Amino acid sequence: MTPASDPIFTDVAATLCLIFIFLVPLAGAGLALINTGLGRARSAAHQMMSSLCAVSIAAVAYLVCGFAWQGFAGGPAHVLHVGGKGWSWIAAQPLFLRHVTLNGSPASLVALLGMMSAALAALIPLGSGADRWKLSATCASTVLLVGVTYPIFAHWVWGGGWLAQLGENYGLGRGFVDAGGSSTIQAVGGLTALSIAWILGPRRGKYTTEGMPTAIPGHNSSFVVLGCMLALVGWWGLNSAGAVVFAGAGTGDAVLVAINTTLCAAASALMAAVITGVRFGKPDLSLTANGWVGGLVASSAACVFVRPPEAAAIGMVAGALVTFSVEWFELRMSVDDPGGAISAHGMGGIWGVLAVGLIARVPPMGPNATGEPPGQWLAQVVGIATLIGFVLPLTYGLNWLLNRMRPQRVSVEGERQGMDLHELGAGAYPEFMTHSDDFGQR
Amino acid sequence: MTPASDPIFTDVAATLCLIFIFLVPLAGAGLALINTGLGRARSAAHQMMSSLCAVSIAAVAYLVCGFAWQGFAGGPAHVLHVGGKGWSWIAAQPLFLRHVTLNGSPASLVALLGMMSAALAALIPLGSGADRWKLSATCASTVLLVGVTYPIFAHWVWGGGWLAQLGENYGLGRGFVDAGGSSTIQAVGGLTALSIAWILGPRRGKYTTEGMPTAIPGHNSSFVVLGCMLALVGWWGLNSAGAVVFAGAGTGDAVLVAINTTLCAAASALMAAVITGVRFGKPDLSLTANGWVGGLVASSAACVFVRPPEAAAIGMVAGALVTFSVEWFELRMSVDDPGGAISAHGMGGIWGVLAVGLIARVPPMGPNATGEPPGQWLAQVVGIATLIGFVLPLTYGLNWLLNRMRPQRVSVEGERQGMDLHELGAGAYPEFMTHSDDFGQR
Amino acid sequence: MTPASDPIFTDVAATLCLIFIFLVPLAGAGLALINTGLGRARSAAHQMMSSLCAVSIAAVAYLVCGFAWQGFAGGPAHVLHVGGKGWSWIAAQPLFLRHVTLNGSPASLVALLGMMSAALAALIPLGSGADRWKLSATCASTVLLVGVTYPIFAHWVWGGGWLAQLGENYGLGRGFVDAGGSSTIQAVGGLTALSIAWILGPRRGKYTTEGMPTAIPGHNSSFVVLGCMLALVGWWGLNSAGAVVFAGAGTGDAVLVAINTTLCAAASALMAAVITGVRFGKPDLSLTANGWVGGLVASSAACVFVRPPEAAAIGMVAGALVTFSVEWFELRMSVDDPGGAISAHGMGGIWGVLAVGLIARVPPMGPNATGEPPGQWLAQVVGIATLIGFVLPLTYGLNWLLNRMRPQRVSVEGERQGMDLHELGAGAYPEFMTHSDDFGQR
Repeated sequence: MTPASDPIFTDVAATLCLIFIFLVPLAGAGLALINTGLGRARSAAHQMMSSLCAVSIAAVAYLVCGFAWQGFAGGPAHVLHVGGKGWSWIAAQPLFLRHVTLNGSPASLVALLGMMSAALAALIPLGSGADRWKLSATCASTVLLVGVTYPIFAHWVWGGGWLAQLGENYGLGRGFVDAGGSSTIQAVGGLTALSIAWILGPRRGKYTTEGMPTAIPGHNSSFVVLGCMLALVGWWGLNSAGAVVFAGAGTGDAVLVAINTTLCAAASALMAAVITGVRFGKPDLSLTANGWVGGLVASSAACVFVRPPEAAAIGMVAGALVTFSVEWFELRMSVDDPGGAISAHGMGGIWGVLAVGLIARVPPMGPNATGEPPGQWLAQVVGIATLIGFVLPLTYGLNWLLNRMRPQRVSVEGERQGMDLHELGAGAYPEFMTHSDDFGQR
Repeated sequence: MTPASDPIFTDVAATLCLIFIFLVPLAGAGLALINTGLGRARSAAHQMMSSLCAVSIAAVAYLVCGFAWQGFAGGPAHVLHVGGKGWSWIAAQPLFLRHVTLNGSPASLVALLGMMSAALAALIPLGSGADRWKLSATCASTVLLVGVTYPIFAHWVWGGGWLAQLGENYGLGRGFVDAGGSSTIQAVGGLTALSIAWILGPRRGKYTTEGMPTAIPGHNSSFVVLGCMLALVGWWGLNSAGAVVFAGAGTGDAVLVAINTTLCAAASALMAAVITGVRFGKPDLSLTANGWVGGLVASSAACVFVRPPEAAAIGMVAGALVTFSVEWFELRMSVDDPGGAISAHGMGGIWGVLAVGLIARVPPMGPNATGEPPGQWLAQVVGIATLIGFVLPLTYGLNWLLNRMRPQRVSVEGERQGMDLHELGAGAYPEFMTHSDDFGQR
Repeated sequence: MTPASDPIFTDVAATLCLIFIFLVPLAGAGLALINTGLGRARSAAHQMMSSLCAVSIAAVAYLVCGFAWQGFAGGPAHVLHVGGKGWSWIAAQPLFLRHVTLNGSPASLVALLGMMSAALAALIPLGSGADRWKLSATCASTVLLVGVTYPIFAHWVWGGGWLAQLGENYGLGRGFVDAGGSSTIQAVGGLTALSIAWILGPRRGKYTTEGMPTAIPGHNSSFVVLGCMLALVGWWGLNSAGAVVFAGAGTGDAVLVAINTTLCAAASALMAAVITGVRFGKPDLSLTANGWVGGLVASSAACVFVRPPEAAAIGMVAGALVTFSVEWFELRMSVDDPGGAISAHGMGGIWGVLAVGLIARVPPMGPNATGEPPGQWLAQVVGIATLIGFVLPLTYGLNWLLNRMRPQRVSVEGERQGMDLHELGAGAYPEFMTHSDDFGQR
């Protein structure tokens, strides 16, 4: 644990940090609401059920093996010696959280924060797989994400792994830096969402026979915005906890973190509203909400290393990026992502990591360090290259294998019937009358 | 206050604990959403209105007399001398919170936590009385629960009463132990829910003339799962606060508590999903949600006395128990419990208390205590016997008397019309079209 | 910062206070849900979108200039010398939060709390402008509120301005006192809501040609009550943070604050339920919810200066006041306020401020102060006079100017079509069937 050298990280600071983590589940509730609200009414119960199961499986899988392989800086790890330097590539903690005293120690905070981070990551692909992803496949895919992909990359970034060692080994700034999880949680989740969307293919009727996309509006905009607001509280907790546990910040720095997080989300949402308003004549609620989430996502990595106006600037870029990315994936790539998860979490997360290199001032760690070490931007670029060159193939490959063993997509008949009736035997809103006709031509 | 002997319980620890309590109302919001979502659309406004009134009345009643009779360990109490030992049976605090300094003192934390605990307990019977319980009767019943039943039993467990004294007086472990309220809040609320369901009888059309139950699905599954997620945050706060205030834990132990609570809920929900999936071919959302809640409930008593794998084991049992209990009450006992409150809170709570005796290791309290005292399981069994042999008759009797004075159930005409229109004069969703036909044959 | 003289306000206290502030966004989520639930289904997406934009703009505007003009007690300010005394009328901080170290210092806590307070204030007028207020006008109006009206009055009360100086300069108690923002947030927001309702005029069909009001029920009562419950948590945080930062309370006093806040809301809601039940034969959900909010609002000013029974008394008056105020504005003043914002926030806030003078005991500040200084009630009356005599004309004037430049109200055609389709191009619930006929005759 790097903050162990930080004199502020006392027992009281640990408990304060713990309370930051206690707010993180609200981010999960928010994401589940956003995903559900942006999906169809006839899949709403299925989406919520999938969310509850994903969180449950993530919690179990993380505590069985996820934490053991993520580990924490300073803990036991497998080290590869290449070029005269030691590279830590996976942690070597015992399974089942054995030998970890869960009493507020830095390691125990990593475990609790990691459990909720893994659950958040697991909720992200549910957005892109909405309306066609089998519940059983969701569960299996979550096991792979939380048991394999997430802990490996989280070890590299947060567990003292080789990305974090880039500073020590090659003098690249402080090494790859991501305080709140723009890469570990969001980009990993977003790239998994992309893999899922590729593997499942678009929803029936999403594209005409000429390949033109049809608008399939979300079924409950109130849920979407409520989700955005709950997510804000969750992100305050997430970024503050990450800044203290993984970036050596003091608990008082959470003021800066909260202001930056809010400004980044606000600027991003406003940018998305303005862009859609100018381009389409009317501002678009779902893109504005995606912009808000993208701003939260982008704020995480640099949350404690920038001043408020810089956070707002990061948010403005995020809002534009998410807006154009959603359109690009839908129009050019023919990727059907009902929840906008790929753009908000994947692109937003990568931008957040890059922003650390471009905008933030990352001070060196340790008591006798001075000045701002150079090469931080290069460490961030190496991290992004790792996300695209290693994490994306890994998560795609694992889900491709899963799909080979048993198709992850529901049957055509099931999709026509709606996920709720087909997979759960009951609709989410059985007493309400809904339009029998579909939005697209199918 | 037992923790007074604990050197960790400083001013800072008190405020940290206070912040745990600040999260508890989210559990109330969650339970209200679950109860409403599992009920009918035409009773939704009534259910939410009843929830708001129940919380309001619980707050007032608890501060008028509830706290005075619950008290806290070490405070003034009426003591009965039987067999040469002193048995504290009711606290003797002044009414209206007089003489209690509300500044973060242990007694004041008990008062705040007690107020929200009483409000939670008051929300539970609303689940079993859904769609037919008069608002005025709800309010009167809440007065009896929070003014009489809850504080008496809470004194026995949390206030230094005779159940807590079983250790000191008869050497049964540490005496009856319940850190987070599996018995005081959940089982008391669940047994009251059972009494209400018995007194009210099943909803019109729930049972055919041959006595076979009809499925009456909840009107909003999204609310149900959102409620589960909000409840998680509330339970983290509830169990952590209870562990510190009532079980002598340090604030840092909240890491263990949060992980245990999450794993217990997750394992319980997954178990319920698997059981219903195997038995009915499709996993059932409402039973999975009930499993989640039952897991939260069962986690409370032992939350700080078990390791994570043991918490998961408690959850697996809870999930199976809730699933079969719901079916047993519906099919064998002809008890109509729309919200599953009896099974999730009553059965889940009793199992949680029993698990302390079967699985947990409860260390002795006090500075010079060593080893793990024997007989803890017997203390737990005595507590369960008290719940079934004393609390259930008491709460049934009080509500029976209330029902004699004025029927608690709405008129046949009112039930046909829907609780919203009949009791409030307006529906919850007046602009939405709903199916005019009922689910059952009536 | 007055609490600087308070030895309790240590680093730890600062971080604890910070966590209180972390709960405040839940109050915002609650208000947004209440406003949306009390509006029409065809404006729900618009209302939620407006809420997200208002929060975003408030965050940006507050950090650009709002904080600079609000400032904090002890900070630089422009002082007018009148009658031999110095009167601070506006703060002189640099724009963009420059020179403020955001590390948990008292000034930084003021900035974070101020940002969320401004966002809350900005959500209030959305309640009275529901179903007819253009999104663009909402945004412009929020800039004026958060950039001009809110910071000026907040400086006078919370920033060491002339209202706070009434004690020091003229011996009126401790000067104008408002711990949690009954005036600065709620009354300022409520009076702006009144201005907006006047400027926009009533909704089409709200009044018959004879001037009789038609009932236009809210579209989702479940949202309304869920909003009330989320708001409770937010208000616990808001009042506790305000008590510590602006009223010199210790963090442990948050127990008193939470109990008082809850009792005040509970008593107010119950009073509203009883009054509507007696007068109309059936208790009214929307007025009970407004009563709950009015109780929260009224609790803020005196939250740390009264005992629980007094808080309940303040709540009972608030509940009666809100109920009759809603009717008075609707029937006598022909003001159409769908969300009840004028009554709950405006009247509730003024009553809360007055209650400090009538009921509370405000101890003097500072180390060598003794006794309870006289004249507190007069300071409160001066504050209320300032709200009505200065803030109301100011906020009305600014919005009137805005309306002259470009009408704030949507076109007749847009209102008939519904705000969602007209301004956003998509409904909130596109799959659900709604009644095509309107409630009123239009």
